[in-house]
Amino acid sequence: MELLKKTIEEKGQVLGDSILKVDSFINHQMDIKLFNEIGKEFKKRFEGEEINKILTIEASGIGIAAIASQYFDYVPVVFAKKVAGANMDKDTYSARVHSFTKNTVYDVKVSKKFISKGDKILIIDDFLANGRAALGLIDIIEQASAEAVGVGIVIEKGFQEGRKVIEDKNVRVESLAIVDRFKGNKIYFK
Amino acid sequence: MELLKKTIEEKGQVLGDSILKVDSFINHQMDIKLFNEIGKEFKKRFEGEEINKILTIEASGIGIAAIASQYFDYVPVVFAKKVAGANMDKDTYSARVHSFTKNTVYDVKVSKKFISKGDKILIIDDFLANGRAALGLIDIIEQASAEAVGVGIVIEKGFQEGRKVIEDKNVRVESLAIVDRFKGNKIYFK
Repeated sequence: MELLKKTIEEKGQVLGDSILKVDSFINHQMDIKLFNEIGKEFKKRFEGEEINKILTIEASGIGIAAIASQYFDYVPVVFAKKVAGANMDKDTYSARVHSFTKNTVYDVKVSKKFISKGDKILIIDDFLANGRAALGLIDIIEQASAEAVGVGIVIEKGFQEGRKVIEDKNVRVESLAIVDRFKGNKIYFK
Repeated sequence: MELLKKTIEEKGQVLGDSILKVDSFINHQMDIKLFNEIGKEFKKRFEGEEINKILTIEASGIGIAAIASQYFDYVPVVFAKKVAGANMDKDTYSARVHSFTKNTVYDVKVSKKFISKGDKILIIDDFLANGRAALGLIDIIEQASAEAVGVGIVIEKGFQEGRKVIEDKNVRVESLAIVDRFKGNKIYFK
């Protein structure tokens, strides 16, 4: 997606070997016009697929998924929670996720009320790196006997194993920008 | 806002004296059509006000704020973070918030890059109860010498002190549904 790549080149910041900061337009400050273009592009990529729900994970996925839903007939968007809140149902699907970025382990949880057997679910997230968050969501979808139709990613780090991890589960991955490598401050896309 | 009140009556769940669960359409599963109506209504309430940025707080405010931005000329949406992430700037505005719901204290942080002197900011959040989260955001806006034009709330607990706390700071509050009281399972609006 050219507009996205252009925006990443203009506004993204490379830190070290593997960190790409996109906090000025994706995951701290959000560019809602760009999010609309991203939503349209996800729809194009998954055209013809039956999708009745979008699943994402707090916090960075929420804005993207909410806007994208508008291009998928306003299907409900469920966001998995990283910490069970005080008011959260005890009756949840849960998966453990290892974050390589933050070097921590956390649980993702979704109330059982919001994923049903037979649901056809599109997973949306901002980044794909090691794929562990997406894998956790696929795990939760499988626990509910629902179907992960695909994973829609804004930025994939093509030099990490996320795509392989997800495709090994026979789930399709569509990434709108795939970074091949960073060199100095320059970003090379696939 | 009648559609919102009707949805709360139909799908909200009252727990005990003061907890209203709206996780099936607002803060775990999100009804994006409803969010669009909410966004339109915020625009109506703040019609004529100059607003160049929306500020919210993770996680529940993000989806609402992202959709609402579409009715405010796609102004950037910044979400305050509750915990500083690994990739977050060290250079942040910060405020301490006491959560009565969870009986904890946490810090909210916004990178200094994303709030500038003179910004005219609309705060958006899902709930107003004791007002401490909104107050933290107003504090951050003041640290940046920006202006809090108003606070747009989806559901206000009218029997708690949030409105007073914010209005004492001379900031306008617009709530789309104000709960007067709960009695048994029934919700009475103001």
